[in-house]
Amino acid sequence: MAEHTVKAYDDELTALAGRIAEMGGLAESTVNDAVAALMTQDLELARRTIEQDGRLDELLQEIEMRIIELIARRQPMGKDLREVVSAGRIANDLERVGDLAKNVAKRVIAIDSGLTSKKLAIGVEHITELALNQMKRVLDAYTRQDAKAAAEVRENDAEVDAIYTSLFRELLTYMMEDPRNITQCAHLLFCAKNIERIGDHATNIAENVYYMVTGERLEEERPKVDETGVVSN
Amino acid sequence: MAEHTVKAYDDELTALAGRIAEMGGLAESTVNDAVAALMTQDLELARRTIEQDGRLDELLQEIEMRIIELIARRQPMGKDLREVVSAGRIANDLERVGDLAKNVAKRVIAIDSGLTSKKLAIGVEHITELALNQMKRVLDAYTRQDAKAAAEVRENDAEVDAIYTSLFRELLTYMMEDPRNITQCAHLLFCAKNIERIGDHATNIAENVYYMVTGERLEEERPKVDETGVVSN
Repeated sequence: MAEHTVKAYDDELTALAGRIAEMGGLAESTVNDAVAALMTQDLELARRTIEQDGRLDELLQEIEMRIIELIARRQPMGKDLREVVSAGRIANDLERVGDLAKNVAKRVIAIDSGLTSKKLAIGVEHITELALNQMKRVLDAYTRQDAKAAAEVRENDAEVDAIYTSLFRELLTYMMEDPRNITQCAHLLFCAKNIERIGDHATNIAENVYYMVTGERLEEERPKVDETGVVSN
Repeated sequence: MAEHTVKAYDDELTALAGRIAEMGGLAESTVNDAVAALMTQDLELARRTIEQDGRLDELLQEIEMRIIELIARRQPMGKDLREVVSAGRIANDLERVGDLAKNVAKRVIAIDSGLTSKKLAIGVEHITELALNQMKRVLDAYTRQDAKAAAEVRENDAEVDAIYTSLFRELLTYMMEDPRNITQCAHLLFCAKNIERIGDHATNIAENVYYMVTGERLEEERPKVDETGVVSN
């Protein structure tokens, strides 16, 4: 391949990675906004968060079209092919993170009489910090093409799962203590689950980054804290 | 393009559609098994269902590789390109349906002391029938390339959503009636939500079939029964 062609190809891959980074930033801020809306019972912010999600859908479609065009024109092989395929998968995961944030924002509206106590939702705020930290680290690993950092992110998902399990139990306890907590805690259970799934998407992205960089797959099943059966569901 | 090349290309598309149909059949049976395990508290069946899901992941990877190869070799345009792209998206949705069924199977194991009354889970069985019916109809629309049937499937998702909303309320009522129902009903809430999301994937597939056949998109937002804010989450 002529030098300038290789250069043009590299530029296309860089542009693709740039769009992924843009999606990553947007997904993170959508999650932040959704959980902020939950903690402050800000219905207006919840509505704006739901609308924002459309932009992630658009970006995914744009990235998919770029990828198809790139495969058709360049017929990439080896590492180049892995980069393109991984970009598509990561974009898919980020779009789903946006959907999960949107779900949380919808729950803010569903809990229409408001939370009777902010205490009930503090656990959700805590697991969000962990999940977003995972997301930040894996996007950083993607940008730096760092397989080791990606493997660590995957390892750390066990912590998000453990926090989710304890949050699940805590919310059930609030329900048992006072039946008036049942409806709001049911919504919070789903919020917690949505955030826990954001951690799972960080894990998926970590696996894709590892594969992209090394051409190898991390072993199929990572150790999961699943003695209760609820954590990985 | 020479006649025999067109024929070879058609054969590849037919083979791809065949793999999608295989995934569809497998996804359906995984959902059936998971809910049967729930209704009969059959832990052995639940475990087998969890294992089966791996086959859907493999099929998805195989389909993705076929698609990449096909785009690189044939550079399809127009309807041909839409068929290939839609096949990839539909395969993705079917793999996620398998994940949702796996989630239900995991809940069977999580409700480890068993359901105190089968009554609590009957609503889940009912919504599963509806969601699986949607799945069957949309896969049929895909095979027959029937845009009108696909649009109808999308329209009918409102029914799945409405049943989910009433099931959500019913399960909360059981929780309020007797605190001993809380843990099992919390698991059943997630089972119901997983099944409702299978309906959403049927809707996604319907949108892709419509786009594949017509080249047009169904209008962005379909009417959703969302007065409670919980149905589409």
